[in-house]
Amino acid sequence: MKRKFSYSMDPPKILVSGFIFVIFLGAYLLTLPVATKDGEGHSFLNALFTSTSATCVTGLVVVDTGTTFTTFGQLVILSLIQIGGLGFMTFATLFAFLIRKRISLKERLILQEAFNYVTIEGVVRMVKRVVLFTFVCEVVGGILLAIRFSFDMSIGKAAYYGFFHAISNFNNAGFDLMGEYRSLTGYVEDPLVVLVICSLIIIGGIGFVVINEVYEYRQTKRVSLHTKLVLLTTSILVGGGTILIFLLEFHNPKTLEPLSWSGKFLGSLFQAVTARTAGSNTLNIPDLANTTLFLIVFLMFIGASPGSTGGGIKTTTFATLVGAMLSQIKGKEEVVFFKRRMDHKLIYKSLTVILSSLSVVIIVTMILTVTEPGKEFLMILFEATSAFATTGLSMGLTPDLSPVGKVIIIMTMFTGRLGPLTLAIALTLNRRPDPFRYAEEKIMIG
Amino acid sequence: MKRKFSYSMDPPKILVSGFIFVIFLGAYLLTLPVATKDGEGHSFLNALFTSTSATCVTGLVVVDTGTTFTTFGQLVILSLIQIGGLGFMTFATLFAFLIRKRISLKERLILQEAFNYVTIEGVVRMVKRVVLFTFVCEVVGGILLAIRFSFDMSIGKAAYYGFFHAISNFNNAGFDLMGEYRSLTGYVEDPLVVLVICSLIIIGGIGFVVINEVYEYRQTKRVSLHTKLVLLTTSILVGGGTILIFLLEFHNPKTLEPLSWSGKFLGSLFQAVTARTAGSNTLNIPDLANTTLFLIVFLMFIGASPGSTGGGIKTTTFATLVGAMLSQIKGKEEVVFFKRRMDHKLIYKSLTVILSSLSVVIIVTMILTVTEPGKEFLMILFEATSAFATTGLSMGLTPDLSPVGKVIIIMTMFTGRLGPLTLAIALTLNRRPDPFRYAEEKIMIG
Ligand SMILES: [K+]
Ligand SMILES: [K+]
Repeated sequence: MKRKFSYSMDPPKILVSGFIFVIFLGAYLLTLPVATKDGEGHSFLNALFTSTSATCVTGLVVVDTGTTFTTFGQLVILSLIQIGGLGFMTFATLFAFLIRKRISLKERLILQEAFNYVTIEGVVRMVKRVVLFTFVCEVVGGILLAIRFSFDMSIGKAAYYGFFHAISNFNNAGFDLMGEYRSLTGYVEDPLVVLVICSLIIIGGIGFVVINEVYEYRQTKRVSLHTKLVLLTTSILVGGGTILIFLLEFHNPKTLEPLSWSGKFLGSLFQAVTARTAGSNTLNIPDLANTTLFLIVFLMFIGASPGSTGGGIKTTTFATLVGAMLSQIKGKEEVVFFKRRMDHKLIYKSLTVILSSLSVVIIVTMILTVTEPGKEFLMILFEATSAFATTGLSMGLTPDLSPVGKVIIIMTMFTGRLGPLTLAIALTLNRRPDPFRYAEEKIMIG
Repeated sequence: MKRKFSYSMDPPKILVSGFIFVIFLGAYLLTLPVATKDGEGHSFLNALFTSTSATCVTGLVVVDTGTTFTTFGQLVILSLIQIGGLGFMTFATLFAFLIRKRISLKERLILQEAFNYVTIEGVVRMVKRVVLFTFVCEVVGGILLAIRFSFDMSIGKAAYYGFFHAISNFNNAGFDLMGEYRSLTGYVEDPLVVLVICSLIIIGGIGFVVINEVYEYRQTKRVSLHTKLVLLTTSILVGGGTILIFLLEFHNPKTLEPLSWSGKFLGSLFQAVTARTAGSNTLNIPDLANTTLFLIVFLMFIGASPGSTGGGIKTTTFATLVGAMLSQIKGKEEVVFFKRRMDHKLIYKSLTVILSSLSVVIIVTMILTVTEPGKEFLMILFEATSAFATTGLSMGLTPDLSPVGKVIIIMTMFTGRLGPLTLAIALTLNRRPDPFRYAEEKIMIG
């Protein structure tokens, strides 16, 4: 099986080279005079930053999207978001699908012949479903938002704004057209905008494997461990995040205090949801308390679910690690969730994902404390985590970044978007045992 | 074996209750009027803080040790340091020794009879060795420091200062008598003081198991994996830390810039060494660049080696995790160091130690950002890590802590000192398999 695919599909290479091509194409388009309102085009470094941020669905911006770019420039950004988000989700879904097929012993042994059929037919069907699903979500969200926006602006502009923000948020991209880096702060108490966008973010960030399973549930009557873990972890993080933000910001005169009770709830919910790496915001991020900001750093680092438009180490990775820790503390040999045992390899994979992610965030933070002297540490940690987890929330550092700082953040966004997945792919494909086994020896730990 | 010991030795309980008893006794003695120079005794909360800090060999102080306490008070603190440091090291060594015996299948099968003999005789011999070794190091260090200090003060005071600082630093306690929270900043360019104290810190923090092995090497001609990993990791962290601090602080006019080349080197070395949870300092910590401070947070978190007077997650834990990560990235099934394979259980134990430690530091940091409003985030993260890793370095937050903040730090120091070890003990003693095995199921990671 492996040999058959190896000439035509080397997944990490396709993904990496495809992304690089799209990013540079986008950067080129944004340097054209027609892209910016001042008629001069974007500088190359800023164009590369914006293009990377859009393609990696991050949302960190060195200039304000609404006031800097022409409609052409904005549509370039929107296309990059759609290509980046959909491309990544499709690719990840397909990969999960192929991998699942490959390791299914039953199919290998019994349905060997059918395997090729399944991969080819299955691939086509799956791609169709992902595209259709994305289209439906974005259209429904776009219409709802357009209706709401039409009370504040002309119908044409409302439609444009509705679809732009629906696409941006479904793809967890965090770009907005509101101007002056305002994001959605004007709609903090608006239930329709908050709930529609929260829904788009969550659905976009939950992963197509989960969506597909829910869709097929009527026939299969089966919920996988993966889906259970994703739903459980997402609920805990969103629920816990909302409650904590509500409590921490309740008396903050710059954020929740002036709002009504429902406004306070919607504001807390939105900020908890956007931390699953969406990047829009309805409260002004630098006004939040340090505790809240650190909580958001934590939530951003965990991020969304595998095979979605979101980033971070992923909910399942986090759940696996917490499960492994609790099992150990209880003295159990195995990690068990919902009466299902987890393979040791998955725990190692989670360990690798969290350690490599922590290393990137720590190293990037250290470098930025050198390149951006005088900036508050939390601001730098926040920005580094936001870039790595492709969240796009910012305490305001990005527009002030030094050129070296911009290059660092560009590389961080790219690593963050590709890192965990390509790593997971590499780990899955190239795994091979040592030629022989060394003798074991114990050491003292902790 | 287990049954025989269970009535007389339940290690975590002995350790925890013994520590609590010593801490409260010390706190009581420090509240006596004879303990402080103002003749009023320490307030109970401050006395509890100081006693916990001394017994847990941390070194965080709410008041300056040299100027606040009488000689009686200082000797109480010194006794707590010696009891805490030696008690912990002895206990950890014995435990490692007993555990090693217990799991040695060869001895269980062949030398069943000899086992009791080994545990009883071996325990006595090991305790004697630990005590003797500690005594020799402290006396040699004390004499060398006293000679140096005698140039600056009377012979009697120099002897007292010499032994106080030798004991404090061998036990990685970080208390000093220099006054005004100065620590050893007056000796930043002094090769004798720097090198003697660095040696005491490193020897005290390397773990008696390693020392014992070096001592026995002439007969055994064997170096264990444990010792190799400890020596390798310690060298890399001290060497790398020194180089990075040298580069980062080279042009800092408040730290290294005014010093000679050798002074710059000694200053960098000392700060890199003290971060293996000793807590003395020769550069003024708040004057360091943010990058250096974050680097020190990282080094403190890793800390010293198992079964030593130092804290942190420990060098072997860090090495195991890095090894596991690199093996995974290379697609290997096993973690191999120096041609020795590591058991999966050790990797899980390391995972548990790092995750539980990270959780404590993150939670304590979050709570302190609430209880200490307006304080810089990095200062709080630094203090939380320092307390957890029982390092005792401070950017200056401790003396300004609110009463709630003090209680939090007291609990953190206690947890940090006992946490990883008791956890490791609990994991080793109470491990039992699940009654039955659940079916395995895969999920997507990363
Ligand atoms: K984003
Ligand atoms: K210490």
